[in-house]
Amino acid sequence: MKFLTEYLWFNTRQKREYLNITPELQRILKKSGIQEGIMLVAAMHITAGIYINDDESGIIEDIDEMLERLAPSGRDYRHHWTGEDHGDAHLKNILVGHQVIVPITDGKLDFGPWQQVYYAEFDGQRRKRVVVKVMGE
Amino acid sequence: MKFLTEYLWFNTRQKREYLNITPELQRILKKSGIQEGIMLVAAMHITAGIYINDDESGIIEDIDEMLERLAPSGRDYRHHWTGEDHGDAHLKNILVGHQVIVPITDGKLDFGPWQQVYYAEFDGQRRKRVVVKVMGE
Amino acid sequence: MKFLTEYLWFNTRQKREYLNITPELQRILKKSGIQEGIMLVAAMHITAGIYINDDESGIIEDIDEMLERLAPSGRDYRHHWTGEDHGDAHLKNILVGHQVIVPITDGKLDFGPWQQVYYAEFDGQRRKRVVVKVMGE
Repeated sequence: MKFLTEYLWFNTRQKREYLNITPELQRILKKSGIQEGIMLVAAMHITAGIYINDDESGIIEDIDEMLERLAPSGRDYRHHWTGEDHGDAHLKNILVGHQVIVPITDGKLDFGPWQQVYYAEFDGQRRKRVVVKVMGE
Repeated sequence: MKFLTEYLWFNTRQKREYLNITPELQRILKKSGIQEGIMLVAAMHITAGIYINDDESGIIEDIDEMLERLAPSGRDYRHHWTGEDHGDAHLKNILVGHQVIVPITDGKLDFGPWQQVYYAEFDGQRRKRVVVKVMGE
Repeated sequence: MKFLTEYLWFNTRQKREYLNITPELQRILKKSGIQEGIMLVAAMHITAGIYINDDESGIIEDIDEMLERLAPSGRDYRHHWTGEDHGDAHLKNILVGHQVIVPITDGKLDFGPWQQVYYAEFDGQRRKRVVVKVMGE
């Protein structure tokens, strides 16, 4: 059984930003030499998400618009009584989810035709981290 | 360490449809011979989801009604500028999630009393795929 | 390859309650002796969720408020025609998700600075269960 763990760092320009991290994941898989197994990709912060969807700018805007509609920024959240101002980012994390597990088959990320892994930043402009763990043979 | 990977194909009659795939997963587990481990079940398309909930027609309608309320079909999504017409299906995928990991204990899917795995089709009437990967001993 | 499976039982006082189960998970990891691998944490009931977020009472209330807004209790859900009265709990489970996979690195749950694992009870005042499976070396 082989394991490889790497950490990706992000520091986005915008408060909310959506980054396709699939090429980074492919690089890590290649480095691991694993042919069969799984890759766990998880945001290590509670104001960011990981999801799989399309690499198309329209759908990214649609996702952002939906998340703003369901968990709006600018509200007076109870969490803000602690001095924080990003309660909406925590809620967006809950809705999107913070992790995905990608199957590895024949040395490749076993994706369908349009699947791309995205890092969804909901409270950017600071250094944040994602853990990637590959395990298999 | 043993691995088994299978692909399930779907081509639903309706645009949106919810299919209980638990019997298929039990068949795959049996074929794998794995007694201890995990089973990853993931939609390979970005307009479908996988979730675990009740095999009860009322709750399925309630889930569908909620998803239509939070990510309505028929809206003029930005994604549609590409010529597509199923922006809502991408958003429903984000809300429901596209994968589950089922624990395997004593050669069985380690479920609670009412847990069933569903394939949630949000843009059907075409051939689509789910990957199932079992790993363990 | 080592495996350890444990079950956590809950019987909350309130209908909806949010419990930080991280210390229990750390105890299970220590017992397993696993240094590299993953821990799967999954609700075994379809009216509860598992998520990772902050151990801060304000954000917990914000999460609860959002879930009540998106999947309100007290509605006349179709599921209630079966005699049940907790349709909203099923829907909250769909939105939050019922499981997380935590990476294990150097014998520790590989978390970011604020990540805590929560059991989210949406239909409490009865005995319910969570499965925890650790696998690795």
